[in-house]
Amino acid sequence: MSDSTHTQMWEKLNLDLPAHDALLGVLGKFYGDIYLSQENRLRGAEYLDFVLSEVHGLRIKELQDAKAEGRKVVGSFCVFVPEEMTLAADAVHVGLCAGAEAGTNLAEQLVPRNTCALIKSFIGFKMARLCPFTESCDLIVGETTCDGKKKAYEAFNEIAPTYVMEVPQTKTPAARALWRSEIVRYMAELEKVTGRTITAEKLAQGIRTANAKRRALQRLTKLRAASPAPISGRDALLINQISFYDEPVRFTAKINELCDELEARIAAGQGVAPANTPRLMLSGCPMAVPNWKLPYVVESAGAVIVGEESCIGTRNSRDLTDESGTTLEAMIDAIADRYMKIDCACFTPNTERLDNVTSLAKMVKADGVIHYSLLFCQPYSHEALKVDKALAGAGIPMLSIETDYSMEDVEQLKTRIEAFVETLA
Amino acid sequence: MSDSTHTQMWEKLNLDLPAHDALLGVLGKFYGDIYLSQENRLRGAEYLDFVLSEVHGLRIKELQDAKAEGRKVVGSFCVFVPEEMTLAADAVHVGLCAGAEAGTNLAEQLVPRNTCALIKSFIGFKMARLCPFTESCDLIVGETTCDGKKKAYEAFNEIAPTYVMEVPQTKTPAARALWRSEIVRYMAELEKVTGRTITAEKLAQGIRTANAKRRALQRLTKLRAASPAPISGRDALLINQISFYDEPVRFTAKINELCDELEARIAAGQGVAPANTPRLMLSGCPMAVPNWKLPYVVESAGAVIVGEESCIGTRNSRDLTDESGTTLEAMIDAIADRYMKIDCACFTPNTERLDNVTSLAKMVKADGVIHYSLLFCQPYSHEALKVDKALAGAGIPMLSIETDYSMEDVEQLKTRIEAFVETLA
Repeated sequence: MSDSTHTQMWEKLNLDLPAHDALLGVLGKFYGDIYLSQENRLRGAEYLDFVLSEVHGLRIKELQDAKAEGRKVVGSFCVFVPEEMTLAADAVHVGLCAGAEAGTNLAEQLVPRNTCALIKSFIGFKMARLCPFTESCDLIVGETTCDGKKKAYEAFNEIAPTYVMEVPQTKTPAARALWRSEIVRYMAELEKVTGRTITAEKLAQGIRTANAKRRALQRLTKLRAASPAPISGRDALLINQISFYDEPVRFTAKINELCDELEARIAAGQGVAPANTPRLMLSGCPMAVPNWKLPYVVESAGAVIVGEESCIGTRNSRDLTDESGTTLEAMIDAIADRYMKIDCACFTPNTERLDNVTSLAKMVKADGVIHYSLLFCQPYSHEALKVDKALAGAGIPMLSIETDYSMEDVEQLKTRIEAFVETLA
Repeated sequence: MSDSTHTQMWEKLNLDLPAHDALLGVLGKFYGDIYLSQENRLRGAEYLDFVLSEVHGLRIKELQDAKAEGRKVVGSFCVFVPEEMTLAADAVHVGLCAGAEAGTNLAEQLVPRNTCALIKSFIGFKMARLCPFTESCDLIVGETTCDGKKKAYEAFNEIAPTYVMEVPQTKTPAARALWRSEIVRYMAELEKVTGRTITAEKLAQGIRTANAKRRALQRLTKLRAASPAPISGRDALLINQISFYDEPVRFTAKINELCDELEARIAAGQGVAPANTPRLMLSGCPMAVPNWKLPYVVESAGAVIVGEESCIGTRNSRDLTDESGTTLEAMIDAIADRYMKIDCACFTPNTERLDNVTSLAKMVKADGVIHYSLLFCQPYSHEALKVDKALAGAGIPMLSIETDYSMEDVEQLKTRIEAFVETLA
């Protein structure tokens, strides 16, 4: 991964080279232990392995090439930033580093200690100069989805200029109007940063590209209902994680190929685990690359994960943007409507999430659900209590886990999860 | 406080009588230790003592009498709920119990453990049937100012129907439009609940009444700039706390009388502490009745408190609603504008708070500031870091305190605050 061309590129991006090399070393080993050790993996997983191994290498090279051609790079931390619009400005839309402990001590100079690991991570990655995505960005877009991020962006803005979109907190018509105006404001900002004009034709293409990616992910979600489970939860999570980093048209093609392979497997009655393996669904906070701790513990405990109800999962792929609009105004309306359907815990009330979790759990034939909240994530910690009740009403048992990125609680998690899996067997 | 008429009333309100008696007993003792032990108190403090002693008694009787006359009672937990509008509907506008540990074990069934003490308190008071204000309400109004409250109201709504106003998170024109529409929606809800029509005349009167209260509190704030300090921080906090419970016209008259007395004191060069006593300002989270822990520790450490930059302090009284409007539409605009000036940490960015904290500290001639965040309050914990920098820039030292309602950390707080006060002497 770390050849000399990459090193030169990272040096230009002002990364902390020794620390970055050490990070890649740790991640490589972690990936080997968690991913490459799996049996019965899909042939299509080669794509995942390649993308992951080059996520700080060739993918960053592509970003630099795009920039050399005059295109811009837009980074974000949230599924509310409308990718359709970014694509319509010929810009590259990428996720930023937020899934590993990096620069935590530095981050705690800017945000309170009682801040979730994801936020400390994105601040730490920037302060420790370890994220080539952040360093490649021409525009970083934040949002107001939770108090932690909303206030952290103020601090982040001091070290990396951050444009913030206001996501409303209810779904009233007035809230929808606010959100629509934020999309229009984002469009203007994109036009300013990129120097391109967003036309109806370009936006229609952006919508089609984003929808095609969502359809591929929806196809994957549905195929996981098969028994035996045709793909591991780790690999499915990785696909969702990569969807934020790789070029969307290539990603869509590769995931559709992988789904073809899954269909063949399912037709042949093959899977990654015996048919009687307890099937679990994850629900709650997003797991950003390389936050594979919980899936690894779960699948090492004799269960298989069959769904991820999270922003790096179905929350990002469930809803399509309506493609029938022909004018910019109609398309902006369609985008506003699509994003207002997101069942983020930032909304009050957010009862649709309870319905969505329950119906997804039934659809993928989950025997149980593990609700995952990042420590200090208030919105999802609150909803854990509600999801538990909703699932209980549907006869589906739930285990609530609150954790962070440290490995200190792995043994405790193992004990709790093994006990939960035993009750399902 | 606990005569038999009151007991009958509390019984009708379905309070847990033995637990409520015990609570009043503890509070009475606490009040005696913290308030009645003070020397050089104002004559006008008799009003404060009386109101506090009858806050669950005669004041609740007044609410019942108002209800018997066909008026309604509206309760809230936040300075964003526009009192002008409530008054214009002939309704009584009161704060609800949120300042003491009560029913914490019950509250933790509905909200996560990592929730601030204020939120656990309002849920606990309701679940333990200890708050006669909550039990007297015809309408409880919540808001979306922080993740903790926003999500807690969903749970609270299951035990006490709660109407929620969406407070925006930025101060853009679109956010102001959302907020204005929320005021209009609140007006309609009030008309529905009360059966009264809110006319321009009534709203104008509501604005004048609310402004008169704010002017009295502004007058108090300014008088505290005198040296020696003419009133203790404890008593000034109590005045701000009582402003949420007592009848506003009576309160305004009494506080203006008390300010007359303060002026006479100042003219005579008298105060509650010697002129060389270190002067501290509090800044941050609200301290609801009977949360007097920190002021007591501070003033027992040889300092005097000369200002409270909080929602139960200057954040609630600094801005007036423009009184020049003659139509309902103009008055609604004036109310929207007034509330959008509030420098709550829920906004991003919220740089005006940094200016306000600094200028208030200078105005009251504070030697230092104690920033107070409730444990797990993310918005104010984030801003503590910013306020510290802003005050340092103005040459004003700051001590950051994070605490809750328990008494477990009192000795630790004493040690830290005494050390801070020593550096100022």
